[in-house]
Amino acid sequence: MKVVKFGGSSLASGVQVEKVYQIVSSDPERKIVVVSAPGKRYADDEKVTDLLISCAERCLKGEDTHDLVDTIVGRYQSIAEELHLADTIIRKVKDDLLSLLASDKTNPSAFIEAVKASGEDNNAKLVAACFKHKGLNAHYVSPKEAGLLVSNEPGNAQVLPESYERLYALRDQPGIIVFPGFFGYNTDGEVVTFSRSGSDITGSILANGVKADLYENFTDVDAVYAVNPHLVSHPREICELTYREMRELSYGGFSVFHDEALIPAFRVGIPVNVKNTNNPEAPGTRIVSERKNTNGPVVGIASDDGFCSIYISKYLMNKEIGFGRKVLCILEDYGLSFEHIPSGIDDMTVILRQSQIDETLEKEITARLIEELHADEVHVEHDLALIMMVGEGMRQKVGTNARASMALANAHINIEMINQGSSETSMMFGVKEAVEDRAVQALYEEFFSTAKV
Amino acid sequence: MKVVKFGGSSLASGVQVEKVYQIVSSDPERKIVVVSAPGKRYADDEKVTDLLISCAERCLKGEDTHDLVDTIVGRYQSIAEELHLADTIIRKVKDDLLSLLASDKTNPSAFIEAVKASGEDNNAKLVAACFKHKGLNAHYVSPKEAGLLVSNEPGNAQVLPESYERLYALRDQPGIIVFPGFFGYNTDGEVVTFSRSGSDITGSILANGVKADLYENFTDVDAVYAVNPHLVSHPREICELTYREMRELSYGGFSVFHDEALIPAFRVGIPVNVKNTNNPEAPGTRIVSERKNTNGPVVGIASDDGFCSIYISKYLMNKEIGFGRKVLCILEDYGLSFEHIPSGIDDMTVILRQSQIDETLEKEITARLIEELHADEVHVEHDLALIMMVGEGMRQKVGTNARASMALANAHINIEMINQGSSETSMMFGVKEAVEDRAVQALYEEFFSTAKV
Repeated sequence: MKVVKFGGSSLASGVQVEKVYQIVSSDPERKIVVVSAPGKRYADDEKVTDLLISCAERCLKGEDTHDLVDTIVGRYQSIAEELHLADTIIRKVKDDLLSLLASDKTNPSAFIEAVKASGEDNNAKLVAACFKHKGLNAHYVSPKEAGLLVSNEPGNAQVLPESYERLYALRDQPGIIVFPGFFGYNTDGEVVTFSRSGSDITGSILANGVKADLYENFTDVDAVYAVNPHLVSHPREICELTYREMRELSYGGFSVFHDEALIPAFRVGIPVNVKNTNNPEAPGTRIVSERKNTNGPVVGIASDDGFCSIYISKYLMNKEIGFGRKVLCILEDYGLSFEHIPSGIDDMTVILRQSQIDETLEKEITARLIEELHADEVHVEHDLALIMMVGEGMRQKVGTNARASMALANAHINIEMINQGSSETSMMFGVKEAVEDRAVQALYEEFFSTAKV
Repeated sequence: MKVVKFGGSSLASGVQVEKVYQIVSSDPERKIVVVSAPGKRYADDEKVTDLLISCAERCLKGEDTHDLVDTIVGRYQSIAEELHLADTIIRKVKDDLLSLLASDKTNPSAFIEAVKASGEDNNAKLVAACFKHKGLNAHYVSPKEAGLLVSNEPGNAQVLPESYERLYALRDQPGIIVFPGFFGYNTDGEVVTFSRSGSDITGSILANGVKADLYENFTDVDAVYAVNPHLVSHPREICELTYREMRELSYGGFSVFHDEALIPAFRVGIPVNVKNTNNPEAPGTRIVSERKNTNGPVVGIASDDGFCSIYISKYLMNKEIGFGRKVLCILEDYGLSFEHIPSGIDDMTVILRQSQIDETLEKEITARLIEELHADEVHVEHDLALIMMVGEGMRQKVGTNARASMALANAHINIEMINQGSSETSMMFGVKEAVEDRAVQALYEEFFSTAKV
């Protein structure tokens, strides 16, 4: 049994929904279909979810929402018309939206949550109607009736463990289940949405709940690429990567997945197959617990910018028990999370996301480090990028670092920081943002120009 | 004006003291001479300081010390005889030692301190007598009369700031001053010794006190070598290195100096010249504030073993504010100081000297990390060596890391850890102890086989 999830761009138009139908009907194992709200049809298009949020916000301010409602319903309508569906489904969508907008607003957050989630909910109904119209035994299932219970954290709901047992019962329902992504219900029966990539989360939870053999995640790319395609033309596609590799690449700036979305599936070892709705024949990328094919030492190269470093030096620092801890305590006072702490004998550097600190905070932290810890010198450097080379067991391979640093040297790129020594799966280089792209290109060239991944 | 310090091997015999005399008398700038106790004359010989410690300990137990006293006095006597000095000086030495051994023992630590320090004190008297005998205007000065005041920390005395002003007056004393190294006096007038390399400390303090132009430190090697001579035959001699480089090399296992000994001189920018008593014509190694000659990127390569790493992994660690701090708090509970903390997304590794923890403590820390911090996995790895490549501004040189890691790769050495990113002056590689020597040799070959340092 497979759980199949389709993203917003896979459901943005009738043509796209037709493709989804073809994919689902071509494989009897595809039993549970998780759908997003209709996404963008073209670069400047608006996502239905964004329209719904604007609509809910206007409503709360008591402003008129007729035009927005028309636009939203129009999106569903154009899909329905393309697919020659009866008008009844669109009337249902419109009635549902209008009654939601007219509902109780004493809790504005709960109101927004419910309106926001209707994008997926109505799309699931529409897709189910389409499948039925085309002769498939398919039906919509609500997260409420399926028992998808979540914590009451709007925009960041966490699945409650008891959900999995309830969801297992979906296996016994005859026919194909069309399930809206992005939200569940709290124990009071109210809608609560997941974080970004919410439909990925729903698919992952359902895959775990029904103990699926495979979780297929359809997007609009043929595969996860070994490097950002904006930096390298026709980059290598990754056939298979492990959860750990996926997580390191995600951290390093790969946006195909919000890696945490896949946790429920990962936890029970269900493989995930990333595929392309527009090219379903392509094998896509499999994300698995353990990777058999070894390929080269590097499976992917990711990079992310917006980091800064706080350099702290103090003579005899390495003899002062508790110094490092005190530095971290000060950062913790401001709720700052750090990424890395390279250290010398008399100095340490804390690397963190610079979006966390502004100039005022920077000055305050600097002052405290000098006054409270008697640091000799503190200075902050901005605009650093971290480049992550990822590959299982890479660290055990003699010479990987040598190849990487030689490639960077040949491209005249100075390495500000190297972090190697904890993760078996990755190696990290810090460079100035200005040379980030060139650094990624140089590393890609070194590890992918000949090796087969 | 120069402060000149001679180590134990430079004063172990009459022949050696004769060389010291030649050195001092050959340069009128050599005004203050700091002496150690007589050291080893040959590999299996005993140092006078070690004999004195045994003697004091026996004395405290009420055991007979005649033979030891004879051996100790015999050492001074043989030097005096070689130099044809009058018997009076040896009688003074013996009387001094016997009266010390007969002195108050209610505070055993103070008793041991006084006996221990007599090795240097009597040697200073002997050397002064020798200089005078040879016609030099030289005299012994006691740290007490010079005002070298120290904190009351036996074996780890710290100079009190007011000492410097008092020591400045030594400039005005006519002739050559012979000053015993290794100890000062607390404010109660009792002897308190410095830590290891105590005579280096005394010389450094005097250089600061009299605002010397140069602090010459005579040992038994021609220079500081770029690498451990046991690992590489005829290693490059270092002409000049900065304080920072010296400190990093010291940390990395270079034993020429205990770098902290030089702090008092460093603080006021007095250059230090390491020279060879047995080959005073050799220029030696100058340790300075700033280095003009740039040489290659690397000035020296040091290594030290006996490190272990504690690996800690926990899913979503990097989102958990305070995790790193909590780990350090646990280590601090046991008074452990750490060296480095390389980190991944979901893992961090703490590298520390393994002499600090035994098996029991290791288990206790592991258990606490799992129970209190809910770490998913904790494991300890032993027998790591840290290799330190040192050179000012090295980090800014594109390709240094590439050359180093390529050299290690070509020698089939796996790099367990790289720490680069905080110090401008060094780059550190962690390897297994088993390959430590080969790693140092490979790096030396890469950076010194052609470059001129």
